[in-house]
Amino acid sequence: MASENKSSLDALSSLAKRRGFIYHSSEIYGGMPGFWDYGPLGCELKNNVKAAWWQFTVRGREDVAGLDATIIMHPKIWKASGHLDTFADPMTMCKDCKKLMRADQIGDIYADQKKKPQPKQPGSDFFCPYCGGELTEPKPFNLMFKTIVGPVDDPSNVAYLRPETAQAIFAQFQNVTATSRMTVPYGIAQMGKSFRNEVTPRNYTFRSREFEQMELEFFIRPDEAVEILHGHVVTLADNPDLNGPVQDDWGWEVWHKYWVEQRKKFLGLVGLPSERFVEYWQKPDELAHYARACVDIEYDFPFGRQELEGIAARSDFDLMQHQTHSKVPQTVFDDPLKQAAKKMSDEAKAAFVEKTVAEWIERKEKAASAKAGKEISFSDEEKAAIAESAKAFCADLFEGKYVPHVIEPSAGVDRLMLALLCEAYEEQKLVDAKGAEDIRTVLHFSPRVAPIKVAIFPLIKKDPDQDRIAREIFLKLRKKVNVMWDVSGAIGRRYRRQDEAGTPWCITVDGDTVKDGTFTVRERDSMEQKRMTYAEFLEMMTEALEI
Amino acid sequence: MASENKSSLDALSSLAKRRGFIYHSSEIYGGMPGFWDYGPLGCELKNNVKAAWWQFTVRGREDVAGLDATIIMHPKIWKASGHLDTFADPMTMCKDCKKLMRADQIGDIYADQKKKPQPKQPGSDFFCPYCGGELTEPKPFNLMFKTIVGPVDDPSNVAYLRPETAQAIFAQFQNVTATSRMTVPYGIAQMGKSFRNEVTPRNYTFRSREFEQMELEFFIRPDEAVEILHGHVVTLADNPDLNGPVQDDWGWEVWHKYWVEQRKKFLGLVGLPSERFVEYWQKPDELAHYARACVDIEYDFPFGRQELEGIAARSDFDLMQHQTHSKVPQTVFDDPLKQAAKKMSDEAKAAFVEKTVAEWIERKEKAASAKAGKEISFSDEEKAAIAESAKAFCADLFEGKYVPHVIEPSAGVDRLMLALLCEAYEEQKLVDAKGAEDIRTVLHFSPRVAPIKVAIFPLIKKDPDQDRIAREIFLKLRKKVNVMWDVSGAIGRRYRRQDEAGTPWCITVDGDTVKDGTFTVRERDSMEQKRMTYAEFLEMMTEALEI
Repeated sequence: MASENKSSLDALSSLAKRRGFIYHSSEIYGGMPGFWDYGPLGCELKNNVKAAWWQFTVRGREDVAGLDATIIMHPKIWKASGHLDTFADPMTMCKDCKKLMRADQIGDIYADQKKKPQPKQPGSDFFCPYCGGELTEPKPFNLMFKTIVGPVDDPSNVAYLRPETAQAIFAQFQNVTATSRMTVPYGIAQMGKSFRNEVTPRNYTFRSREFEQMELEFFIRPDEAVEILHGHVVTLADNPDLNGPVQDDWGWEVWHKYWVEQRKKFLGLVGLPSERFVEYWQKPDELAHYARACVDIEYDFPFGRQELEGIAARSDFDLMQHQTHSKVPQTVFDDPLKQAAKKMSDEAKAAFVEKTVAEWIERKEKAASAKAGKEISFSDEEKAAIAESAKAFCADLFEGKYVPHVIEPSAGVDRLMLALLCEAYEEQKLVDAKGAEDIRTVLHFSPRVAPIKVAIFPLIKKDPDQDRIAREIFLKLRKKVNVMWDVSGAIGRRYRRQDEAGTPWCITVDGDTVKDGTFTVRERDSMEQKRMTYAEFLEMMTEALEI
Repeated sequence: MASENKSSLDALSSLAKRRGFIYHSSEIYGGMPGFWDYGPLGCELKNNVKAAWWQFTVRGREDVAGLDATIIMHPKIWKASGHLDTFADPMTMCKDCKKLMRADQIGDIYADQKKKPQPKQPGSDFFCPYCGGELTEPKPFNLMFKTIVGPVDDPSNVAYLRPETAQAIFAQFQNVTATSRMTVPYGIAQMGKSFRNEVTPRNYTFRSREFEQMELEFFIRPDEAVEILHGHVVTLADNPDLNGPVQDDWGWEVWHKYWVEQRKKFLGLVGLPSERFVEYWQKPDELAHYARACVDIEYDFPFGRQELEGIAARSDFDLMQHQTHSKVPQTVFDDPLKQAAKKMSDEAKAAFVEKTVAEWIERKEKAASAKAGKEISFSDEEKAAIAESAKAFCADLFEGKYVPHVIEPSAGVDRLMLALLCEAYEEQKLVDAKGAEDIRTVLHFSPRVAPIKVAIFPLIKKDPDQDRIAREIFLKLRKKVNVMWDVSGAIGRRYRRQDEAGTPWCITVDGDTVKDGTFTVRERDSMEQKRMTYAEFLEMMTEALEI
């Protein structure tokens, strides 16, 4: 979307409805706030986005395996992950008008309003943005949807719809490791529905209560294991080549940056080049306590700049939590590491332990200082506790055992689709040879995600030869990609119909096709027309669609 | 699976776990009964089954549009569909041991047991199959999972996880019709998760609480509309050609049979030829009250013959229900029908109405008789009521307006996958040239659904030429299909590894490849080896995978 019409979410959503991309869920019953359905073009777009992600992340690599886990999982998973205790928004209610709202969004709601009401209770900083009434003390509201599994309605049978796909990957880490013949560093990827009972769903499909995610957990060695194996750990300061093959001596920092670059490459492939989004590196005091680094990819939606996806370095936090709660070890056995450790002398091992203890204390002090916004020094007791765990960790490492660390690139299908729609949408002013003005509505989708790849028209539908040849092309292409047949109206009108659907190529079969087999290929963005043979077109198209 | 080892569900499920097809959900927390996860090979198999269905049902046709709706929908949808009131199993509890069970499965549970307990209450026909205790009166237990949408835990905010994907299609019928430029006869297809809170989930992945469906609702004209348009209605007695293009003068009976044939064709394409399943036509007294006909496709699973999918002719029941409950008309406007009706004389119209009234009364009497198992004759009052609705229906028809009827081919992804796994599994006894016996475990998947299509091996991994050429082939094929690279162990061992994964082709690059570019293609089922060029292999593979 050109920046000048950023505000035209209305125009976009109206096209999205009219052309069958997005509908309100349950519309004939008045709709369900926060739930959206994808129509015929919308679900093709969605399937294509997901297929592109899967090809790029799983099938196109040798170090990522797929997973497809259930939405309802054991409730202890959400205890271990922290969601049961802390996945909540602060909710407040107006004592006067009884409206519920998120306490942290009151400022936004004031801002959305033309006239801010006066507080009924003079002097209060926060008051109901709708009526000025007094607000209750904010209370945490857990965002997980609850249900009961089995026939007995008992607290012991409560389960939750997953609020993210990631945890299933951690819960199945040992199974996948045992059955996939892959060894760390390697990743597990999953796509699927997640659910969050948002207090106030908003911004079209951006923040909805049911949505789809594409998440990768890429498991890596702890830096200390890399150090033992290679005698060094490559960091970003070493200027590693992130576009070549991955390297065994990379530390977590390099792996994290590598995945940021991979995600940017993917976004470019599906139609969102780097200059169209913002890469935001979270500051040390913004990071979650277990996170080493986190990058948000942010996009300028018509309703403001919002996070499209995130790439987090989550250390060994998640697997450790599941190890503690399930009592099932989440360690891997790394034979090359054990062999490398065997070759170390006792002195080298002692020096390694000493160095590790010092590093752990330094890192933890640094993190605590960043969090507190002031210099923090640990007490001797605190240092001794850290030293003890660092020593146990080193002892395991020397046996080739550790709990892997993880880099997590996590993307939302629906918000990526919304960004692609915003990015693709244009109301283009055209002036014809006679100076007449016209508006062309066009969706400039990347061919890789476009719902329809090719539309095929016989120029004159009543010409039996044109019809026959066009049908032959149509039927051949349909085995390969999603194609559309259209014989209704003038060619110009048929082009416009495809422009609105974002179809990159239109093929018109005419009298010359009957003679020489070439047809006209009209390209959506440039509106240029070229004569091509079937073989030429197929080669051009295949290349444009490859990932 | 050869019939002699039908009972080896244990062997199959053990392979499925070991090779990463199927895991227990949340296994490290003790699992969740009725929930299963798909591992790396399982989710590729699943993706392929779904992609095949989508290609066959949606992209490969011109008369079907896709939909991707939410799992949580407006609760009134389940009131309209009847699920809220009647989607229940009879549940009973043992007053002694407190076990819950389905009252209609007690016979099965007796049968499963080696020793049937004696009733503690002498003379009772039904008693607890576990302890012989007294059972409570069976009560209906609704199978829908309940949840609360939004922050207020109030009965007015109760919603349900969909127990089927079909209802979303009916609820969005008007939106899709308005935005897809399709006219009846046409269909809407959807794939996605559904949830049923089974009292006793059983039979591996066959009856689980969370599962995935592939459903098509194919909307057709009522036969009366076809009659007006064409002056006749083609029935099965006319012996229509069901393999050619669909015809505008087909009645519902032909459309229903057409879709049964289409489903059989699809099952054949993914590896389940007609001779491997049973086509069961429900008898008139078995049909749901609104159904005109229903065919079950049944497969002989190791645990017994079970329904794989169903193809039902559901009349206009569903859209009518939604019209009543939503008060949004579910009629379509059919211009050719209106034009045809315009040409009818008043006499012809009167005769048409009279005939329709007589047919409706006859059909409804027949259905009531079949249900009751004896001849039923309606009273004059009942006949007058039917006549009135038939007349209103005809009046609408003459204006080109009607609520479409529907044919519903409904398939379960998980049970189809399970059937394909059962069908594919073989422990094959091999005898080598020296007479030594060996067991080869192989999954004879259709190449169309096989998780890995091609495995590529350099014969001698340390030969740089072989390695380079094999890598080139690997990287080229990876752009097209899911491929596997394997350099570990002898070629024979690599073949066996792929046999267990169901990979149809293995390519071995050897010294001759370096000279003439040909490589060895080993076919999984015959174990035959052929020399091929890359172009030859690509052509053979593309053809084998096409749908």
